[in-house]
Amino acid sequence: MPDILHAVGIRAPAENVYNALTTLKGLAGWWSSDTRGDASADGLIHFHFGEKARVDVKVLELKRGELVLWEVLDAHPDWIGTKIRFELKQDRDVTKVLFKHEGWRQPTEFTHHCSTKWAVFLVSLKEMIEDGQGRPFPNDVQIASQAA
Amino acid sequence: MPDILHAVGIRAPAENVYNALTTLKGLAGWWSSDTRGDASADGLIHFHFGEKARVDVKVLELKRGELVLWEVLDAHPDWIGTKIRFELKQDRDVTKVLFKHEGWRQPTEFTHHCSTKWAVFLVSLKEMIEDGQGRPFPNDVQIASQAA
Repeated sequence: MPDILHAVGIRAPAENVYNALTTLKGLAGWWSSDTRGDASADGLIHFHFGEKARVDVKVLELKRGELVLWEVLDAHPDWIGTKIRFELKQDRDVTKVLFKHEGWRQPTEFTHHCSTKWAVFLVSLKEMIEDGQGRPFPNDVQIASQAA
Repeated sequence: MPDILHAVGIRAPAENVYNALTTLKGLAGWWSSDTRGDASADGLIHFHFGEKARVDVKVLELKRGELVLWEVLDAHPDWIGTKIRFELKQDRDVTKVLFKHEGWRQPTEFTHHCSTKWAVFLVSLKEMIEDGQGRPFPNDVQIASQAA
């Protein structure tokens, strides 16, 4: 089972990063600007990406300042049943985010795409916290082009 | 063995992308601006990242417009013996780059970091080809912060 792994270091306390992962306002600032639901423990969060995609997750586990774990309930078929994990490790004034999107049944071209896209969004998370402005959907960095 | 997977779609012919992966000038435009050696078949390429890192690869296989495969000879210990693969697939005016950094013995925090960093550099490759200006080291997007 291939996992998507990423890491970013954010110059902020773990508490700030944790808030960006566990509140609708925080999540809307870096992943999808159209985020609804309940980001607290046992909550269901709905991330809308225009007409083309929606991701529904259940908040499986939260440890304040340390861990956020979601299970994907509905999304692209490759995502259903996968888990999305954010581990936070603060070292002085920097919080490292160790990200894992785990449980893919097999690697596909979509896995490749999602891996690059997660990196773009984690950089968006870092920019939101450090600079005050992330690049959530629909203002996200484009990595794919459509043939014309 | 975990693999790092990525994909970007570049609005350009496969030949242009292939040239960016098989010439020193092309490589210097998106990965490290200090790239030396020989990027043709059986060549050795040396990527310098300031004082802190160097990556030496051997060009294992080239298929014009389709495939570039390197083996890492010297670098961070986790990288030695790994392979870096770029598969190109052109669909009308867009070339998809399927990237794989394969053969990691185990996933470490450094794997997480490198995965995110590869994404940043592949976006740099896309920007270089589409917009004429990439962000190679030392002008690369920073993803880590050092504790102060």
